[in-house]
Amino acid sequence: MADTKVYRASTTAPVNIAVVKYWGKRDAKLNLPTNSSLSVTLSQADLRTLTTASCSTAFQEDVLLLNGEPSDLGGARTQACLRELRDRRAALESKDASLPKLAAMRLLLVSENNFPTAAGLASSAAGFAALVRAIADLYELPSSPTELSLIARQGSGSACRSLFGGYVAWQMGSQADGLDSQAVEVAPASHWPEMRALILVASAAKKGVSSTSGMQQTVATSGLFQQRIADVVPRNMKSMEDAVAARDFAAFAEVTMRDSNSFHATCADTYPPIFYMNDISRAAVRAVEAINAAAGKTVAAYTFDAGPNAVVYYLEENKDLILGAFYPLLEKLDGWKDGAKGLKSNVQFDEAVSSTITSGVSRVIMTGVGEGPQKTDVYLVSEDGKPVSTSA
Amino acid sequence: MADTKVYRASTTAPVNIAVVKYWGKRDAKLNLPTNSSLSVTLSQADLRTLTTASCSTAFQEDVLLLNGEPSDLGGARTQACLRELRDRRAALESKDASLPKLAAMRLLLVSENNFPTAAGLASSAAGFAALVRAIADLYELPSSPTELSLIARQGSGSACRSLFGGYVAWQMGSQADGLDSQAVEVAPASHWPEMRALILVASAAKKGVSSTSGMQQTVATSGLFQQRIADVVPRNMKSMEDAVAARDFAAFAEVTMRDSNSFHATCADTYPPIFYMNDISRAAVRAVEAINAAAGKTVAAYTFDAGPNAVVYYLEENKDLILGAFYPLLEKLDGWKDGAKGLKSNVQFDEAVSSTITSGVSRVIMTGVGEGPQKTDVYLVSEDGKPVSTSA
Repeated sequence: MADTKVYRASTTAPVNIAVVKYWGKRDAKLNLPTNSSLSVTLSQADLRTLTTASCSTAFQEDVLLLNGEPSDLGGARTQACLRELRDRRAALESKDASLPKLAAMRLLLVSENNFPTAAGLASSAAGFAALVRAIADLYELPSSPTELSLIARQGSGSACRSLFGGYVAWQMGSQADGLDSQAVEVAPASHWPEMRALILVASAAKKGVSSTSGMQQTVATSGLFQQRIADVVPRNMKSMEDAVAARDFAAFAEVTMRDSNSFHATCADTYPPIFYMNDISRAAVRAVEAINAAAGKTVAAYTFDAGPNAVVYYLEENKDLILGAFYPLLEKLDGWKDGAKGLKSNVQFDEAVSSTITSGVSRVIMTGVGEGPQKTDVYLVSEDGKPVSTSA
Repeated sequence: MADTKVYRASTTAPVNIAVVKYWGKRDAKLNLPTNSSLSVTLSQADLRTLTTASCSTAFQEDVLLLNGEPSDLGGARTQACLRELRDRRAALESKDASLPKLAAMRLLLVSENNFPTAAGLASSAAGFAALVRAIADLYELPSSPTELSLIARQGSGSACRSLFGGYVAWQMGSQADGLDSQAVEVAPASHWPEMRALILVASAAKKGVSSTSGMQQTVATSGLFQQRIADVVPRNMKSMEDAVAARDFAAFAEVTMRDSNSFHATCADTYPPIFYMNDISRAAVRAVEAINAAAGKTVAAYTFDAGPNAVVYYLEENKDLILGAFYPLLEKLDGWKDGAKGLKSNVQFDEAVSSTITSGVSRVIMTGVGEGPQKTDVYLVSEDGKPVSTSA
């Protein structure tokens, strides 16, 4: 009878939160951006996707299970990723007849997040990074993370940055084929391991506008967008790379806040306008400004993606100033870790800021800079090819 | 004994709401703007300042009473206005010895608004326009409204537009002395008298950042501002002048909404960011979009000044679509006029939009395009030089 062995590989991949934002495509099919971006990879102890890629002659079709639910693999972007990975495996197989013919087998892909999707965190980046990394491991591709970033980018732009840990740049590139639009490591997590992030999850309704359609509306209609991509972002990229190299938090923080402001400004300048930040987000901005004012120096930086959640970056040495300011307002919420309670801060928020944050934030996530994708022997597919759940 | 006759002149002046916004000074002392702007003058039946300018040898000092309260006349801007007006009067007196020597007399200026200052409407524009017009009338200056706009501009930039009715442009000019930074009539109210405005007054806390300091922070820190003043506004001015000339409401509305978005985008791009719009403002944006979607054409336009209040422009012929949509949400509020009740609209707002507007709007003002300053024989100073109040 035929070989029905089930080949498996498992990996985890991290979430990344940009400090210089990706917003706008110059090529929607290849996911080529209008500008470079830079992000901090967050710790997988707090936020990660675990994906097992498996294949077998016994499988009848490609299947993806996401958090236990069947998920569509038919999308052009996902198909582009699978095609590229299979092509690379097929090339290896054609050079070495002894290799099992995995490229021709159907795939069973099972993926789970360790964080609520409802939190509105960019899970697609971690998801596509884990998908590409797991299949690349299954196929034993010699590809480097930067080479794989070219594939992951086609699935979800920001996913290319989740193939690295630490501080990661997505170089926009200039080629029409996108072969130079890739992620590179600016610095490993070990270069600046003290970076922390407190995420304030705003209890917001579902996102009004998807980022995919939103960013193209901005490209098409914002009168201010050209200055962002031609002038503002290139300056921010340079300043941010310098700040990370020098471990200069004040510089890191100012660029982070300015770039988030610039990104949301171009969203508000879109026609019709796109609003991702709400009054809760704006209260978080004022809170961070109050924390820095009370500290007499810049110890915290806010940034907002395509949603109302605030991500507040700070350094471990200043945790009392940041956690000590927010904990008293939000002590009832899930997500605090040991050590957050009892920290002292001298900041006094305006009553409007305090009440908006207390009533509007639904959970917190305490995390920090972390590593890139990790191979693991925790499998979401059994040896006989059945999906299994770690959370079950 | 000396002649202690009290000389008096009274005028009313209107509020104007810009559809292409003034934001940024290239010369703070002379109030010279970084870009031209264009506004609609609103009816004085609903929003106006009444000012009586009087002078007499019996007066010991210059005095300004604003809504019954003594108000500071010592500010550099106010002093610049008074100096210029007195200089012009003195020049007349020097040419005609028969003229009473008013330029040397102290002034008693009494001013009242017919709308709550608390409403957060730009009352300084109407206030300075009335002040300058009333003193010019008292002094019997032959100056045209455009000539007086050069003086009013130095008091409060947007005040120069309140010296005209209808549709008014403030040409930024290019001279260092500001003598070409003046207001001109784009079209009289009679050219397009059907223009209406529904103002949704948001029950917001006091403005966080004054427009005077805010706009200079934007000039100094926004990376996107240069594109607004160099590219966006010049295009919007041309499009708006064409739309008014053609009485093309759809074009008028799109430029109005785009320019408001662009202005608030540069505020959000200021460092630290300036937020004038809040969740109530954003709900009003979504409401206007829903009204236009339900109508199948553009029948309403939102615009926001340096505060959360929404000004919704529409044409009388479409009042049922606009008033009929908002009245059911806000019928308990002050400000509705006869005819608003019972109008029918087929629009259905999202529950979030409806509840935010219902809970967040504190009053409405129904008005429309109107005339410029009007001479009146209603005096706020008695013949014997005592302040009197119309509201008393």
